[in-house]
Amino acid sequence: MISFEHLAHVDASPARNARAQYRNGLVEPTAGVARGFTQANMIVLPRDWAFDFLLYAQRNPKACPVLDVSDPGSHTTALAKDADLRRDVPLYRIWRNGKLAEETPDASAAWAEHPDLVSFLIGCSFTFETPMAEAGIEIRHITDKSNVPMYLTNKLCQPAGRLHGNMVVSMRPIRADRVADAATISGRFPSVHGSPVHVGQPEAIGISDISRPDFGDPVRIEPGEVPVFWACGVTPQAAVMASGVPFAITHAPGHMFITDIPDSAYHA
Amino acid sequence: MISFEHLAHVDASPARNARAQYRNGLVEPTAGVARGFTQANMIVLPRDWAFDFLLYAQRNPKACPVLDVSDPGSHTTALAKDADLRRDVPLYRIWRNGKLAEETPDASAAWAEHPDLVSFLIGCSFTFETPMAEAGIEIRHITDKSNVPMYLTNKLCQPAGRLHGNMVVSMRPIRADRVADAATISGRFPSVHGSPVHVGQPEAIGISDISRPDFGDPVRIEPGEVPVFWACGVTPQAAVMASGVPFAITHAPGHMFITDIPDSAYHA
Repeated sequence: MISFEHLAHVDASPARNARAQYRNGLVEPTAGVARGFTQANMIVLPRDWAFDFLLYAQRNPKACPVLDVSDPGSHTTALAKDADLRRDVPLYRIWRNGKLAEETPDASAAWAEHPDLVSFLIGCSFTFETPMAEAGIEIRHITDKSNVPMYLTNKLCQPAGRLHGNMVVSMRPIRADRVADAATISGRFPSVHGSPVHVGQPEAIGISDISRPDFGDPVRIEPGEVPVFWACGVTPQAAVMASGVPFAITHAPGHMFITDIPDSAYHA
Repeated sequence: MISFEHLAHVDASPARNARAQYRNGLVEPTAGVARGFTQANMIVLPRDWAFDFLLYAQRNPKACPVLDVSDPGSHTTALAKDADLRRDVPLYRIWRNGKLAEETPDASAAWAEHPDLVSFLIGCSFTFETPMAEAGIEIRHITDKSNVPMYLTNKLCQPAGRLHGNMVVSMRPIRADRVADAATISGRFPSVHGSPVHVGQPEAIGISDISRPDFGDPVRIEPGEVPVFWACGVTPQAAVMASGVPFAITHAPGHMFITDIPDSAYHA
């Protein structure tokens, strides 16, 4: 497992500075922030639910590739030195009985309700956006300075214990002649969702209106572009909702935890 | 996650026949048996220990790549149709309080002691032996019809909850001019231990006498050959011992569970 301790030679100050701003209250989507440092989805659950979730992740590795799991009660991670998982994400969601109860830039108070919380950090497709952009593939939501569009699909995840739900996907419009390149490049990063799960044909995965994402912002699809769909780390939030999980803390979609780990460390 | 249900077109009768023989009492090491079908290490733990182990596997993916996890109380697997995990391994080990209590070809009686056992099937390096052999790399323990040699190293695994222990490795002597090829080919199979963890220099990982493996059989090392070490799925048994786990069932080293999944399905 990759840890910041292996990467003492890396100057992670862009990641550290971003986390410090979020800890001080800045709220923003993180696409394009601290470019080159891996961003992560987060879900935090009481110890009693942790096995169910780790098994859910193991059975659904495209949607839930686990990068780090904290010890119960800890709010640190092997992926970022001196980080505080309770405060370093720009925007948190607090879930109660499967319903979104609150959005907050500081999860400390909710965190204090449970002594045995286990934090899962999950790979994010933002990681392969840098190599895609370097290969000349435009990342529309970065061009337009918006959040990536995300959709709840009709694709069932493999259930695990008390957890079940459908897959959430992110979408990027890609020029038809670069779709294969986008699939190849993202496929080199299996621990951050890897290759697309679906190309074109949004209705086949239950997306009836591509201009109305379930999370994030809509983006322009230009003539000659194809919507390409990647498994998304918001999938755990769909499981929280579908399964009526009593208590969970997550990031808000698109508002990720920024790690000290260079994207290249996850190149297979 | 790969399941036999995706592979209905595959004639898995060699795997099924091998399992049937083991169910009927045949005891033998499985190296080279049902060639082309993935073999798996096994560890079975009460539900209370399952999270610790799944986390241990997640933190030590080279040694413990998880291929399937059963639901508590189940003795079936998504990797083999109609298999009975209690009887289809040629030889089991029953562990009590971290000590080997018994070896038996039928684990049904021990299994019945706990209603909530969770079975983990873990990738095995036998999977990449077929492509290595096809590339002209001799697999000495198959040539000599013996069990692969395995060694307890001084490499500490990342602990998880109540579990800690050292890494176990398997060893294959490889001609010096084919070591790079062996690393490349095995590296294409990350979910069955992937590339070597160590090449040459056995003493650097705490192996004082290469002719005396801790598990399995010794093999000849010919002049011009280098001992090459891969992470091994016996590592969980080392953790059972080091951590004093109250109850576990495992396979006996080299006596693997044979799945219906073709090796090629785990090619990255």
